[in-house]
Formats: sequence, C-alpha cells, structure tokens
Amino acid sequence: MLCAATQVDNENMSKNSEKKIAVGIVGAAGYVGAELLRLLAGHEAVDVCVATSESEQGKSIGELFPGAPKYSELLLCAHEDPQLQACELVFFATPHATAMYHAPALYERQIKIIDLSADFRLRDPAQWRHWYGLDHAAPGLLSEAVYGLPELNREHLATARLVAVAGCYPTAVILGLLPLLETDSVVPDSLIADAKSGLSGAGRRAVAGNLFCEVSDSFKAYAVQGHRHLPEIIQALSLVCDQPPSLTFVPHLAPMIRGIFATLYARARHEDIDLEQIYARRYGSEPFVTVLADGAQPGTRLVRGTNKCCISTFRPQDGNQLIVLSLIDNLIKGAAGQAIQCMNIMFGLDETTGLTLTAGTP
Amino acid sequence: MLCAATQVDNENMSKNSEKKIAVGIVGAAGYVGAELLRLLAGHEAVDVCVATSESEQGKSIGELFPGAPKYSELLLCAHEDPQLQACELVFFATPHATAMYHAPALYERQIKIIDLSADFRLRDPAQWRHWYGLDHAAPGLLSEAVYGLPELNREHLATARLVAVAGCYPTAVILGLLPLLETDSVVPDSLIADAKSGLSGAGRRAVAGNLFCEVSDSFKAYAVQGHRHLPEIIQALSLVCDQPPSLTFVPHLAPMIRGIFATLYARARHEDIDLEQIYARRYGSEPFVTVLADGAQPGTRLVRGTNKCCISTFRPQDGNQLIVLSLIDNLIKGAAGQAIQCMNIMFGLDETTGLTLTAGTP
Amino acid sequence: MLCAATQVDNENMSKNSEKKIAVGIVGAAGYVGAELLRLLAGHEAVDVCVATSESEQGKSIGELFPGAPKYSELLLCAHEDPQLQACELVFFATPHATAMYHAPALYERQIKIIDLSADFRLRDPAQWRHWYGLDHAAPGLLSEAVYGLPELNREHLATARLVAVAGCYPTAVILGLLPLLETDSVVPDSLIADAKSGLSGAGRRAVAGNLFCEVSDSFKAYAVQGHRHLPEIIQALSLVCDQPPSLTFVPHLAPMIRGIFATLYARARHEDIDLEQIYARRYGSEPFVTVLADGAQPGTRLVRGTNKCCISTFRPQDGNQLIVLSLIDNLIKGAAGQAIQCMNIMFGLDETTGLTLTAGTP
Amino acid sequence: MLCAATQVDNENMSKNSEKKIAVGIVGAAGYVGAELLRLLAGHEAVDVCVATSESEQGKSIGELFPGAPKYSELLLCAHEDPQLQACELVFFATPHATAMYHAPALYERQIKIIDLSADFRLRDPAQWRHWYGLDHAAPGLLSEAVYGLPELNREHLATARLVAVAGCYPTAVILGLLPLLETDSVVPDSLIADAKSGLSGAGRRAVAGNLFCEVSDSFKAYAVQGHRHLPEIIQALSLVCDQPPSLTFVPHLAPMIRGIFATLYARARHEDIDLEQIYARRYGSEPFVTVLADGAQPGTRLVRGTNKCCISTFRPQDGNQLIVLSLIDNLIKGAAGQAIQCMNIMFGLDETTGLTLTAGTP
Repeated sequence: MLCAATQVDNENMSKNSEKKIAVGIVGAAGYVGAELLRLLAGHEAVDVCVATSESEQGKSIGELFPGAPKYSELLLCAHEDPQLQACELVFFATPHATAMYHAPALYERQIKIIDLSADFRLRDPAQWRHWYGLDHAAPGLLSEAVYGLPELNREHLATARLVAVAGCYPTAVILGLLPLLETDSVVPDSLIADAKSGLSGAGRRAVAGNLFCEVSDSFKAYAVQGHRHLPEIIQALSLVCDQPPSLTFVPHLAPMIRGIFATLYARARHEDIDLEQIYARRYGSEPFVTVLADGAQPGTRLVRGTNKCCISTFRPQDGNQLIVLSLIDNLIKGAAGQAIQCMNIMFGLDETTGLTLTAGTP
Repeated sequence: MLCAATQVDNENMSKNSEKKIAVGIVGAAGYVGAELLRLLAGHEAVDVCVATSESEQGKSIGELFPGAPKYSELLLCAHEDPQLQACELVFFATPHATAMYHAPALYERQIKIIDLSADFRLRDPAQWRHWYGLDHAAPGLLSEAVYGLPELNREHLATARLVAVAGCYPTAVILGLLPLLETDSVVPDSLIADAKSGLSGAGRRAVAGNLFCEVSDSFKAYAVQGHRHLPEIIQALSLVCDQPPSLTFVPHLAPMIRGIFATLYARARHEDIDLEQIYARRYGSEPFVTVLADGAQPGTRLVRGTNKCCISTFRPQDGNQLIVLSLIDNLIKGAAGQAIQCMNIMFGLDETTGLTLTAGTP
Repeated sequence: MLCAATQVDNENMSKNSEKKIAVGIVGAAGYVGAELLRLLAGHEAVDVCVATSESEQGKSIGELFPGAPKYSELLLCAHEDPQLQACELVFFATPHATAMYHAPALYERQIKIIDLSADFRLRDPAQWRHWYGLDHAAPGLLSEAVYGLPELNREHLATARLVAVAGCYPTAVILGLLPLLETDSVVPDSLIADAKSGLSGAGRRAVAGNLFCEVSDSFKAYAVQGHRHLPEIIQALSLVCDQPPSLTFVPHLAPMIRGIFATLYARARHEDIDLEQIYARRYGSEPFVTVLADGAQPGTRLVRGTNKCCISTFRPQDGNQLIVLSLIDNLIKGAAGQAIQCMNIMFGLDETTGLTLTAGTP
Repeated sequence: MLCAATQVDNENMSKNSEKKIAVGIVGAAGYVGAELLRLLAGHEAVDVCVATSESEQGKSIGELFPGAPKYSELLLCAHEDPQLQACELVFFATPHATAMYHAPALYERQIKIIDLSADFRLRDPAQWRHWYGLDHAAPGLLSEAVYGLPELNREHLATARLVAVAGCYPTAVILGLLPLLETDSVVPDSLIADAKSGLSGAGRRAVAGNLFCEVSDSFKAYAVQGHRHLPEIIQALSLVCDQPPSLTFVPHLAPMIRGIFATLYARARHEDIDLEQIYARRYGSEPFVTVLADGAQPGTRLVRGTNKCCISTFRPQDGNQLIVLSLIDNLIKGAAGQAIQCMNIMFGLDETTGLTLTAGTP
C-alpha cells in the first residue's frame, strides 16, 4: 500500500515493515484522535498510515497538533479515502452515526475495526434507535461486535474483528461495580452512579456552553433525565447479574480538562463483605486497574495521562451503604488508551505495549 | 461605646446612629469574615464596630481586603477585646472550638450571638464530642441555640438570642430534601447526598493540599467515611420525620472557588408524586429559594455571589428514584448571607435587607 | 411609549416615572449586555425598556440570564425594533460594524447613544477601514462622537450626544500611562504595553479556540502583529503628547474569566520623577481610580466585579525604566460600568450612581 | 554500594548494572523532585538509588507520589545520608541555600553534581549575597560550576563535575534573546522580559498566597522591584555581548499549573534583520528548541509535559521593536528535563535519552 507516513521514515520502515501493523484513524482531528495519534506514535508495533477528518481535510497532522512530531507530515484525507482499504486495522474516533456507515465495507474486506464511538456498543438495534434517535445502519454487525472492556471481555477480544470500545463513563462505572455484582454482594436494584467528568469528554466542537467563560469556576449536572451511556452500562452489568440491575446514573461536568470521577453507591446484601478482598481478588492481576487501600481518596490527577483505573472502596459507619470511587482519564482509559489495549489483545501483543504512561506531579 | 468605624464616618452616623445595630465580628480575617464585612458594608441598619483576628491582630481591614472600602480603617483586635461587650450583636466567623469559649460571657451580657461555626449546631454534647474530638465547653448553651436555617426555623429565629447558622453542606442538602420528607413522599432510609464544593469551603489557612497546583484540574472526594456535617443534617431532617432518616453523605472538592452542588437521591414511596407542586408549595413564598422548572440543570454559577438556593427536581424514566439538585454559594447562603438573613429576622428587619445580590455573567 | 418593563412593575413606575431615563440596549444577549442589564437593574434613575438581540430574538431576559431577576420578563426584540425610538438613551453592546448602521437614525431623533463597540472610537475613517476591513457607514458621525473615558474626557461627556466608550485594553493602558505623558516624564517613543486579559473579552460566540479545553491551564499571546485597540490607544495618548507616541502593544489571554492586567513600560526622561506624587495628583479625586502605594502588586481579583482601575508604579533599581501596573475588570470598567459612568455624566447624575460595587473575597 | 532500588528489581539490575548510573536525588519530595523521579524512571541508563527529603523522611516514594510506579518502594532518607556517597551523580532539587552546604563533600569524593537550585548559578559571591541575603557557603566552587543550559554551554557540560542548571525564567528568556544578541541585531540596553509563569514554579510549600482560592481566576505580577533570576539572566547574556546588557524583567503568575510564557522586547539596531533566518540558523540543529514560523502564537499548552522550548518572532508594522515569544514547561525544560539533558551530555549519552516527551491534546 501507499502509506504516507513511510515516506517520511523510509529507512526505519525497511527494517521493521514486516512486523508493523498498518493502521488507519477515521476522525483524527478530535481530542480522541489526537490522543490516538500521540499514543500510537510511541507504539513500536504500529504505523499510522491514514488519518481522516471531514472538517480538516487537507491539513497535516503537524498543523493541527504542532506538538506531536512523529506523524506531523501525514495529511488528513476524507473518511472514504481508499487508502483505508490497505490498512490492517482501522480506528473510528468519530461521533456516533459515522462508523455504522463506513465500517461495514471495511469489515467485509477483513480489515479489523476498533470503534471508539457508540455505534456498535448496544446489541439491540431498537435500544440504539431509542437512545440515538435514528435507525442503525448496520444492525447485522451489532451481534458481531465485541465490547471493548478488556477487564470484562479479554478472551473475546483476542479473536474479535470488530470492537466497540467501552464509553468513558461506562468504563469507570462498570469497573467500579463489577466485583460487587459478580460476587452477589449487593442488591442490584439499588445502584447509583454519580459521575463527574472533565470537559474534554464533550469533544472539540465549538459549542457556546463549553466556552471557558461558561464552565470555568462552575459545576453542573446534565442529562439527568437519561444519558446515552446508561443502557450501555446496564447491558454490561447484566452479563454478571441474574437480572438486569436497576441503575440511576447522573453525569456532571467539573471545570477540569480530563478525568472521570465516579462515586458509586450500592447496598450490601449482608454484613460479612470483605471489600478489600473482593476487589484485590478481582483486579489483582489486572495491569491497568489499581485498587487503593486504607481509605485512599485520590483526585483524578492521579490517573491523568495514564491508562489506569484507580478504585477505592468504603463502608461508612459499617452501614449497609457501600461506596466505591472509580477514577479514569476519560481520553485514555476511557477512550484512546483502552482502544490500544484492545488492539494489543487482538494482535497478540503484550497488553501494556505503548501504554506505560505515568501521571506528572503536579 | 467607642466604635472604630464611626470615626471614619461621623457625619453619616449622627443622622442614623439611633437606628444602627452595633455589630462585632470575631474572626474577621477569613473568607467568611471577609464576606460578612463586605455584605454588612451594604446593610443600611448595621455598623460593624469591632472586628477581631488572632492571626492578623493590629492590621486594618484595608490592608487585608484592599478592595473593601467601607471598613478599611477598622483595626483587627483580639478575640477577647472588651469592645465586643458594647456590641448588640456578635458574629463568630471562627473555626469550631472558638465560639464555645468566648460566646458564653457575651451571652450573659444579653448580647445576641450568631455563630457561623459548628459549636452550637448539635444539641447533644456527646455527639459533639464524638465528631469534634473534644468536650464541649458550654454544653448548657446547646439547648438555647436556635438552628439558623430560616426556611426551616423562621419563627424560632425571631426571638433567638444565640443562633447556630446552618453549615454550607447542610443548607444545600436540607433545603433540597425537606419538601420530600415533610410530605412523606420518600423512604427515609434511602437518602444519599453526593455533594460537591468549591475550595473556599476549606478556608484560608495555608494547607498544602489546597494549593492551586494540588487541586486545579482535578476532582476528588474526601471524608467519605464520615463528615462532620452528617450529624447536623440528620438532626435537622429528623425534625420532620417520624424517625431519624438514614443518610449517606459524600462530600467532594471541585476545582472552583465558590459553590456547593448537591445531587440528592431518594426513593419515592408511591407513584403519584407531583414533584413540581410539592416544591412550589413549600418554597413559593421563600425569598431566597428558587425552584426551577422544566428540567433546568444550572451550574453553580447561577447562585455565585447571591444568597439564593436553587433547586431542580427529576424523576428519570418515571422510576422510583427521585433526584434533586440543590445549589448554593457556600460563602453566602452557606455562611455570611444566611447569617445576615438570620440577623434580619432577629432584629425585625425585612428579611432581604442587604441581601439583594445578583450573579454576574459570566 | 410602550415599555415592556413597566408592565412588570407598574406601581413602582407610577411613583418614579417622571425621573427615570428610558433606556434601550441593542445587543443584550452577550456578556457586556448581561452586565449592563445587571448593573442597570440596580440603578435608581434608569428603566431598561427595550433589549434587542438578533440571535436570541423572542426569548426573555430571564431565559437567557436566569440569575437576573429585575428584567426577567423583558423580551428580546430585533435591532430595528421601533420601540428603540421611544428611548432617551440607547446603549449598543454589539460587535463592531453594527452600531454604525443603526445609530444614525436614532441620533437624528435626538436620542442619546452610548456605543460600547469600536464603531465610533477612531476619528479617522481611513484608519477605521484599515483596522476593521470595511468602509465606515457613518463617517460623518465620527467627529461628533465623544471618547468615553471620563478620567480623560469628563467635560466633553457632559454635553455628548454620542459616546464611544473606550475599549477594555485602552482603558487600562491609557489610565496607566496618562500621568506620565501629561507630565512629560517619559520618552514617548519607548512605550510598551504588555496586556493580559481574561476570556470574557472574547465574548460569548461559540469559537473552538475559546473552549474550556483549549484555553484552560494555558497562556498565550495573540494579535502580536497588531491589535485593533492599538490605534485607539495611540489616538487617545496623542491628545496629551506633542507628537503621536510610539507604542508596542501585545495582548495575551490568561485562563481566567474576567480581568485585564496591563504591565506598562516607559523610559523616564530624567532622574527626578516622583511617581507617587504624579499619580496621586492626577487621580486623587477620581472616584474609580485607585493608586496603590508601597509597591503593592495586587491581582486582577482586586478589581473583579467593580468599576475600579487600580494602578501601582515602580522604578526598579532606580533605573530609567519605569513600570506601571494597571488593572481593571474588562466587563465593568472596561465596558458596562464605564458606559454607565458616562451615562451618569451625560445625565447630570452623581458619577458613581449604580456603580458602588465591591470585589468579593475570594 | 547498597542501593535501595536494586532490592526491588534485582534480576533486571544484574543484567544491566555495569551500564546504569547510580543516581541520588536530594530534595525528592517537591515538584521538581517528583518530575526527576518520573522522568528518570523512564531513562534506561539510570538507577535512582537514593532519594532524600527533610520534611518527608521515612516515607516511601509511593506514599508521596502514588502514580509513579517504578521507585515506589524507595524510602526517603535525610539529606546527609551516607548512601549518597556511593552515587556517581547527585541531583539537588532543593530550595536555595541547601546544596551549597551539602555539595562540597560530595564534590571532593568525585561525585558529579547537578544542582537545580540557585546556589551555583552566579559566579560572583558578592552578587549571591546581595540577592539571596546570606554569605555563600562554598564560594570556591562557584568558578567550578558550569551553567546548565546546553544550548549555550554544551561543550563545557561534557566535562563538567558540577552543573548549576539554569533557572526556569532564565531558560525561557535567554533562549529567546540569545540569537539577537549573538548576531548583534539589537540594542542591548533596551531589553524587556515580561514573563508569565504557572504556579508550580512556586513549589509545594504551604503558603496562603498560593492557595487555589487566592490565585485561581486572577492574574498578578510579583517581584517587580527585582527578581533573583535577573542577575542570572544578565550574567548569561553578558557572555555574548560586549558589555552587560540592560534588562528589565517582570515576572507574573498566571492561574495555571505549568508553563512559562516570556514576551521579550528588544529594539532592532537596523532595518535589515531577517528574524526567521537568525533563529533558524541558531537553533536548526537543537533537539529541544523549536522555532515556529509564520507568526505562530501558541499557548504554553504546546510545550506542557515536554522538554521543548518553542520560539516565535515578530516585527510588528515593520517597526524597530522586535518581539520574541519563548515558551517552556517550567518543571521540565525549566528544571527536571534540562537537568537530565545536562546529565546526558556529562555522561556521553544521546542528549535526548529519556526526554522524548510529547504534549497531550488537550
């Protein structure tokens, strides 16, 4: 294939070209696309060959993200660019209702697909229509898609051809509640997820409500009547419950750039619950989930810029209300990093390749 | 009495001196003290005659708060300064365990006291010891103190001699839940208050954890195991329930200066609950509580700099989980403004005197 | 006239209607419009009768700014609404190239006009075309317009029919440099104004570059090659110099909502300059300019929410480079507050009416 | 030597121990220490064996910086710990007046020293006393110290035994002005550096003035009368001028965590100055200096988290006032990253080892 990036770096390519995965990114001009490009630039087994953007077509990556050196000369092309067909793997970092139109043709050509949008997350097309307001364009693929949350679904990801990466809120909420539901420790009709997100979750579109002057030094809730991530969370949690759990989910916007902080409430079924043990067992061997001990109450800063999910558990006054704090960086473990983690699994690479990121202080 | 402020403004005083209330502020160098001084400077019926600070003794108000013109020449004196005895009313804007030592002597001299700290909020000295870690120094006064939340307690405030102004979190949480509990609309063992505060709630002390670099661009929970405002909230809510409600209260810090945003969860007792009507009836004539309609989801910005509590109610997907959003400015309706509202009631003034503040945009 | 606001508040109007100035605001939906509405709501001599907005036509003020009670029922109408012709005074709080089309007809009807945009600030239509990129639509009015900076121009404002309120940067820069130039203390070809502004100066339009995620936790310069406020500053300073001074002006954006901080550099003509005396004499009787003594180095917080300009002067190491810090709130002394100050002068009111605002701490 | 870190990671050490540089960090608990630890954790040629802190002695790195996995079990010891004597290289990330007491003994033992504080930056002990207020404790070492700014001083660093890493402001200001002075393009008595820094430059000490509530949403200047970095800048610039230049330096604090933005003003000597060429030639082969073209006006965000200095040059209206924007991350190119860059040179490593950091978006 004609790969734009190799022209820049021919020498290096000739040595390694047999090993590198040729990757395309559809929707590379947004925040998630920017993080994908940055993280993949440090991933030894990957070459990003194509990057698309409808709004920024023709510009180079370097014009858009001047701080990212490796792919700076790659030119943004259209979503339908035929170069995508020469990729082994295509990421969709687009808003919903984009991948469902473009992915099927690639899928038929045996190109692997990792979709970071919501298009393939819900298995039921009727649910999709209810929450997204239009008919699904590729309902036949919904059952093919594997939910991209490695801690829940690792074995299926190894053979997946189409991955629907878990959303940012769902990642934090599901990882926080999973051990309690798997061990049948809590009443599944009592779940509450009070989640707070930084503004980058809202993306890069020019919306007056997300101007600095509108959101800085303020805090608010949104979508209290029902957020699109709710059915996704319930679908995932239902896998480990006898019946679909009842979850109340309220998202909020905090005046910060990155980070999701989920405060999770669940009622204990009985008194003899060893929270520390339950979480240690569940996540002890997970490379990207850290269970904090001793009542640690960290800020989202702790996971900023990393692919980590940090979890801390509480049982105040030894009552029956359990509290779980679950923290991620919405753009990494909640999007680009998790997509790369899925890719590593799909391609038989070490799951942490390219993801050994640490958080700066401060 | 020898009143420092009158020296600055003799002419004005001579006209109005018979009407003005001579006021002292103990602990005037903190954020709450600064707001008290600023708001009282615009209150026609009050003269601040004494202001104290242990740490900033000898400095003038103008040195400390160069932007506040009216009392700029008033000098900060010690907490025990005898000038306080010539006041009609003394505000305590001190940390806990200060007013309980200094207030009794003033109380005996028939000086009215409005304490903004926690010293007189709990009626049970054993509870106070449990949560504050030392014996109460004036347990006999606990039963004299009137809880300073006008929307709950207006008639008792009219004759109060010692007022314990409601805390910032309690104000937001109690006002949010009160209509539901008074109408017996919710199960009182299912209450959850997930509250988010700006940093000014932590005061002006130099603590490394509150440095800009530590809290900016991050979000965290704290005191998940139990915050001192929990017993205060339960005590107040118990007044309107048959038995003490069960409340889970988790406070958080958001990277903003002012504002409390309480997301409140309660389970409906039955299906026929008209949230809008319940709240409209309860607060329709309250000057400082605004019930928002039509699913409004405002940010704390809406109440910044005002004495308002804004409330919005939800019943997502017509389920049995009710959600109430309750917003205040922690330094005003959660402290200095509410104290002045209490003062207005105690002195028979219009309750809104000096409190007609509006929020700037942006 | 048919005045929307009077319908809300008939009783009050009947008492005072003879005294109140009927005011219209063209462009009431932006940040400057919001501040005008808020400040005028507290101005005893004014009734806002008409408010216009092209983009938000038909909405009420209350929908747009839910925190502003007084004019909440006033409906936004079109810029050409005939009700404007019944006003005594019309404020234009519009982007440039709006007032110059609408003001002439009002001017002919003897309606006083206070334009907060740039349309009538430059006296030379060629300059206007050069900096704004189109022909001026009302060049004949340019010489009629009085520059709205009371500290420079008070006597002319008293009789003005058309006022071009000084821009935000110009207000801070001119007030900072004026005493030095008037006393011929500095070399006028050496002036540098390094100015930093909060984001509200950029207005409320949805521009991707002003999203929270783009500007938060970052700092940048803009328009280094030449900002439109440069000719305005030079025109004003030329009034007090023998020849037009040479000024280098670099504006920057700081991640804050409000505030302009101008760091001004000028070279002293000689050694015997008593900075403190020069500034004290010039501004000693100005109600809204505070000259700080003793090397005070305040933050923009000091003037936030007020109509003040705070100035502090320095001569480091007794060298010939003088430094002046000049601080304002860009939306008040840099826009809405200054416009009201001009109005007070035009209508013979006390200059501080409606402008006794103080800055909150914190 | 007994190296704490090797106990954690014996297997790895046995393979590589001959190559790795045993490193100690004095003052590891501050922001600069934290960044040194984080960056060195990713540096293949280094083992951090000792880390000291007076205030946090006995704690582990993991307790202090829970997000930094590699050295999490390393325990903080005292500044005089004898383990330091077994290191090949010791970094001092301490406040001033610490290294000058501890470094001499290590220096005598042939241990290389990289001091990030101000102790060895000024060559003249009298100057040091003037600016730091006490006698220098090791004046004999001042002439031995090599100034740690590789772009100025690379050849001397290769053989240095004691490096005084350039300060954060000096790095941005010197790199910005150097090409102009080296080419004699500007009048050296006309230099102005208007510099803006994030709060992390103030360190981690609990100071009330740096609380979130004090600095957020505000902007201020400080040390206008004279900042300690002034003599350091002048000393460095004097190396390339015939006579010491005259520089006015005003530092400011912007409400952001990291970043220095220096706006530099200099007067051109003549008209024929090709700014682009001058800077391209000077920095074309520098790995960490990026000269931006075409009037780029980036924010500090562009260099956040990287070891880059980005420079953009302007000549507005073709006048004689030149403007240079120079941006760094104060904790990396302004401290920890630059120290590692110096180390790489001292130890004959590739200069970019461990420093290939990119800035995230957003």
